[in-house]
Amino acid sequence: MTVAGSVEPLLKLTADAMNEVNELILSKAGSDVELIPEISNYLVTAGGKRLRPMLTIASASIFGYRGDDHVKLATAVEFMHTATLLHDDVVDESDMRRSRATARRIWGNQASVLVGDFLLGQAFRLMVDVGSLAALDVLSTAASVIAEGEVWQLSAARSMETTKRDYEAVIRAKTAALFSSAAEVGPIIAGANERERLAFRQYGDALGMAFQLVDDALDYGGSAATLGKNVGDDFREGKVTLPVILAYQGGNDEDRAFWRAAIEQGQNDEAALASAIERLERTSAVEKTVEEARLYGDKARTALSELPAGQWRDALDEVISFCIGRVV
Amino acid sequence: MTVAGSVEPLLKLTADAMNEVNELILSKAGSDVELIPEISNYLVTAGGKRLRPMLTIASASIFGYRGDDHVKLATAVEFMHTATLLHDDVVDESDMRRSRATARRIWGNQASVLVGDFLLGQAFRLMVDVGSLAALDVLSTAASVIAEGEVWQLSAARSMETTKRDYEAVIRAKTAALFSSAAEVGPIIAGANERERLAFRQYGDALGMAFQLVDDALDYGGSAATLGKNVGDDFREGKVTLPVILAYQGGNDEDRAFWRAAIEQGQNDEAALASAIERLERTSAVEKTVEEARLYGDKARTALSELPAGQWRDALDEVISFCIGRVV
Repeated sequence: MTVAGSVEPLLKLTADAMNEVNELILSKAGSDVELIPEISNYLVTAGGKRLRPMLTIASASIFGYRGDDHVKLATAVEFMHTATLLHDDVVDESDMRRSRATARRIWGNQASVLVGDFLLGQAFRLMVDVGSLAALDVLSTAASVIAEGEVWQLSAARSMETTKRDYEAVIRAKTAALFSSAAEVGPIIAGANERERLAFRQYGDALGMAFQLVDDALDYGGSAATLGKNVGDDFREGKVTLPVILAYQGGNDEDRAFWRAAIEQGQNDEAALASAIERLERTSAVEKTVEEARLYGDKARTALSELPAGQWRDALDEVISFCIGRVV
Repeated sequence: MTVAGSVEPLLKLTADAMNEVNELILSKAGSDVELIPEISNYLVTAGGKRLRPMLTIASASIFGYRGDDHVKLATAVEFMHTATLLHDDVVDESDMRRSRATARRIWGNQASVLVGDFLLGQAFRLMVDVGSLAALDVLSTAASVIAEGEVWQLSAARSMETTKRDYEAVIRAKTAALFSSAAEVGPIIAGANERERLAFRQYGDALGMAFQLVDDALDYGGSAATLGKNVGDDFREGKVTLPVILAYQGGNDEDRAFWRAAIEQGQNDEAALASAIERLERTSAVEKTVEEARLYGDKARTALSELPAGQWRDALDEVISFCIGRVV
């Protein structure tokens, strides 16, 4: 096991298929309505590692799949993700993502909502084109679950009543659901058996949980430059993530009063952020969050052991370490 | 042909199935995340005539369909429509719809965007449950086309360069696409032939066009009370609808300067609205818009003539007159 991990082996193995995904993204995000390709191209060139569609490519290819349905489903997965980002930025009123201005900052909330809807529609058309009702079932369920998780997060926002269990349910819905679905549709179209399908679902779920836990840890420091968002974004938005829950639980009365004021009453200026980081350090809350991510990493590795050994499985193993290593 | 028309015969014929639709709406809009049923129930009790799901019920039942897939697809259609309304109100910053406060006014833009996404996801799950790839194809295409039309409308907003052809393309996408799809999935699941499927698609398209034309005419007067929105909403939002295009084309230089100032520069206070209505009357622009709706009504009737005669067809004929009669 590599400590830092790398996404390179997976990037290399999926390179040809991902080129096809990128072409399909540009073609299916095309429209005579110029604003649509304009915004879509902006998001596509924003890059990101395309972890989710790579999971679909890998989880089909590991079973020797030969065809192009995995490219279509991977594109659908990326469209679902992009639509979610567009809507999330509107909901969170975010101005920056991956070190660039968000679409809503440039083109406004209106276009972001509608182009997100368009991409979601195109995602479903691609799934229908593939014609697998089982894959459609998995991905349409994910679409509902993701939105449900986002509403839940909105309802729980700014409340220190949020428990670790609430938090886990939210990130399982808003992040892990797409990871697990992206990984599950590969074995479906490749004709793998139920055990392998379940193993990929579990791998994706655990990887997604680890990924989000690390993301939430990074929001309070770590290698923030690589994250491309500003340290303290979650704090300023009053999001109750695991580091905050742990610092609240592990703190004294004065700490708890601080967190309630910060999260529930919005006392979250730069001085408050500095104080928050000090309290997180004293209670080892970020460390414990990363430890939690490591436990999910172990779960992902256990799930992988059910799958065929070889370069694909090795690459998927490296991705686990990579997701966690972002913060080490 | 009745001049005023009525939706009563269709309401009566579809009553049992629509009760099932209403139950399914409440059940599928349920969630442990309280905000979701809260908003969904608010929208459901807002009523509206449920014209779109009734088209699905009717277009299956006319072929003697016995089963419950038409109820599921009708529910999916209504969810797609509701999701569109939720997002539209955010995009248009509307505070009132059907004489009630909009969801975004009460729960905010964030919840409206996310609950819309959730309902769209639930719509697709219902379609997957039905398992007809042909119906999925029709409705997923509609989802993309509707969003594309909305983006187009956004791009064309506040521009007097908008032509009648542009306008027709926008309303065909944003309104008629769901009417035609709702009417097309009935014959699909009922196993009707291609000719009947096409006839229902054409009927829905023409009915949707007539419906939107009348809606846009009503925005400048007519029986505004029955519309439940305020006269002049489109005017204040700078929407270039057919009445405006016709008044611009049929007006003199001074008229054209007025419309450019109103639409493009936002000079749209109450005095401007009164002046706009006077100019619309002088150029018979609202009358001509209704005349256009009547032509679509004739197309809808021609399409109906391809379908089996009987009480269902008679009821669908009455709906045409009803849609147009709203303004007479």
